[in-house]
Amino acid sequence: MIPPRLIALDWGTSNLRASLLGAGGACLEERAAATGIMTVVDRQFNAALLTLCGDWLREHAVPLVASGMIGSQQGWVEAPYLQCAASLPQAAAALTPVAVDPDDSQPARTLHLVPGLRCTDADGVHDVMRGEETQIWGADAAPGSCCVLPGTHSKWAWLDGAGRISHFLTFMTGELYALLTTHGILGRLMAFGHESEPDFSAGVRRGLSHSAQATHALFAARTAGLMGQVAPEGLPDYLSGMLIGIEVAGALQAMPATSKPLTLIGDGALCRRYTLALQLAGQASELAAAGAATRGQWRVAVAAGLVMDSP
Amino acid sequence: MIPPRLIALDWGTSNLRASLLGAGGACLEERAAATGIMTVVDRQFNAALLTLCGDWLREHAVPLVASGMIGSQQGWVEAPYLQCAASLPQAAAALTPVAVDPDDSQPARTLHLVPGLRCTDADGVHDVMRGEETQIWGADAAPGSCCVLPGTHSKWAWLDGAGRISHFLTFMTGELYALLTTHGILGRLMAFGHESEPDFSAGVRRGLSHSAQATHALFAARTAGLMGQVAPEGLPDYLSGMLIGIEVAGALQAMPATSKPLTLIGDGALCRRYTLALQLAGQASELAAAGAATRGQWRVAVAAGLVMDSP
Repeated sequence: MIPPRLIALDWGTSNLRASLLGAGGACLEERAAATGIMTVVDRQFNAALLTLCGDWLREHAVPLVASGMIGSQQGWVEAPYLQCAASLPQAAAALTPVAVDPDDSQPARTLHLVPGLRCTDADGVHDVMRGEETQIWGADAAPGSCCVLPGTHSKWAWLDGAGRISHFLTFMTGELYALLTTHGILGRLMAFGHESEPDFSAGVRRGLSHSAQATHALFAARTAGLMGQVAPEGLPDYLSGMLIGIEVAGALQAMPATSKPLTLIGDGALCRRYTLALQLAGQASELAAAGAATRGQWRVAVAAGLVMDSP
Repeated sequence: MIPPRLIALDWGTSNLRASLLGAGGACLEERAAATGIMTVVDRQFNAALLTLCGDWLREHAVPLVASGMIGSQQGWVEAPYLQCAASLPQAAAALTPVAVDPDDSQPARTLHLVPGLRCTDADGVHDVMRGEETQIWGADAAPGSCCVLPGTHSKWAWLDGAGRISHFLTFMTGELYALLTTHGILGRLMAFGHESEPDFSAGVRRGLSHSAQATHALFAARTAGLMGQVAPEGLPDYLSGMLIGIEVAGALQAMPATSKPLTLIGDGALCRRYTLALQLAGQASELAAAGAATRGQWRVAVAAGLVMDSP
């Protein structure tokens, strides 16, 4: 068996993903549990970690690194934000240690939390990310390009010529979709569980052309249903398209001009939606190779001197 | 006692408001119940009406008019939409009758439903209203001006030179505020029940300047809380301001140029918020006199020949 060198945790709001990495960051084993920080009761993070990979801790005397919301105010310990522009070496020099009790008379171990990033615009308004910075550092995007990480809170992050994350924007696209469909009036006309690329594309076009009236544009997902222009089965994709179109139009308008394709990072199905929306907006994009989070965690650990990158 | 001439119902999603009107549309008595169309079980609208004002029906042999969601697909009977541009006389000529059973061996009565309006933009996308058209007809706004009706689904409606409603836009401002604060992550940092005009104004400015990135701008209601820039007690107003600022910027951008002040129609507290937001956007506005809905209902009934407007 290839000897493990690092336990890497991607610990977010909903899920904990653990990877056992060998030389060069090769993934030897992966595990996941629905023990994200919002589901762990009474901050029993030590217990949640042991439940998922206590055996790894006992069997492998390797360092531990974690990125994501586990370093937030609601997480295990708050890892202070790094202010943008921020580089991977800066993050690696600012890890926050947390003591892990292996709970079997072994000595305590140290879990190293990767700091999240903060950027501040001309009006003094902040934006924040936790976890996405590590995915970006694992995504091999070109300096001077832009990375897009679709999700509950989508992130658009711009890299400067030195490969630092110079600034970024959060769009609440996924959360708005969930709120509007689960609790709002738009969901009442919808039939879920179907896919409709034509309706998705129509929604994207509407979002792109009406992003300056975003909170008006969304109401079309009701009238299109009322008037029978979009079938109940197509309405979820129509709304999804509008929200993504609104995001894409707003982000491209805020974006420094670049001819470089965007780098999409994340879940395949969601990235396919963004690829299509970006095409409709005339913006080229390419998909980062899978495993960006663990590659980023490995690189942070190497830069921090926790592991050697030798073969 | 002044003899009653009309029973006028404002029957919306959440509430039923009934007014007994005398000569000139003077309001003799008002009643309300939380029996909006979404709360009436099994479409028992006849019973809901009798519960609120069965005595009026028995005692006064006067016509009945209703505006609002009661004429929707989910209402008592669907009153087909009038296509914009639409005038009050056109609406009065297109009332939909519903038989009301007074339930005490009296003969059936007729309730006249005011049609909602539909408008269609250059892309074939529709917008709809039900009830607001009647408020507009009672608001005495100048021909060529714009009426703003804040609410769960705010409406901006433009009058042409003949006083017809030429087109309108719906903004989901109130629903988004409710969804984001009740079910979303933004609500988690908030303390409700306070008012903060400075935070509201800061939110409006942010919404006005970032309406092209609306779904990004909202995230500032999280970071401002995380970073301590806005106190938990001020965050609800900061978010409210942003949503209203996004609406105002989008609507003004879509608005035909006019030097006429906007006419604000509706609830006093909410209209005060819009007055402030419009001031910050450099747009003059004035408040319609209270009672626009019943004035509109009276005028529709007069135009339909149901009542005489004599003293």
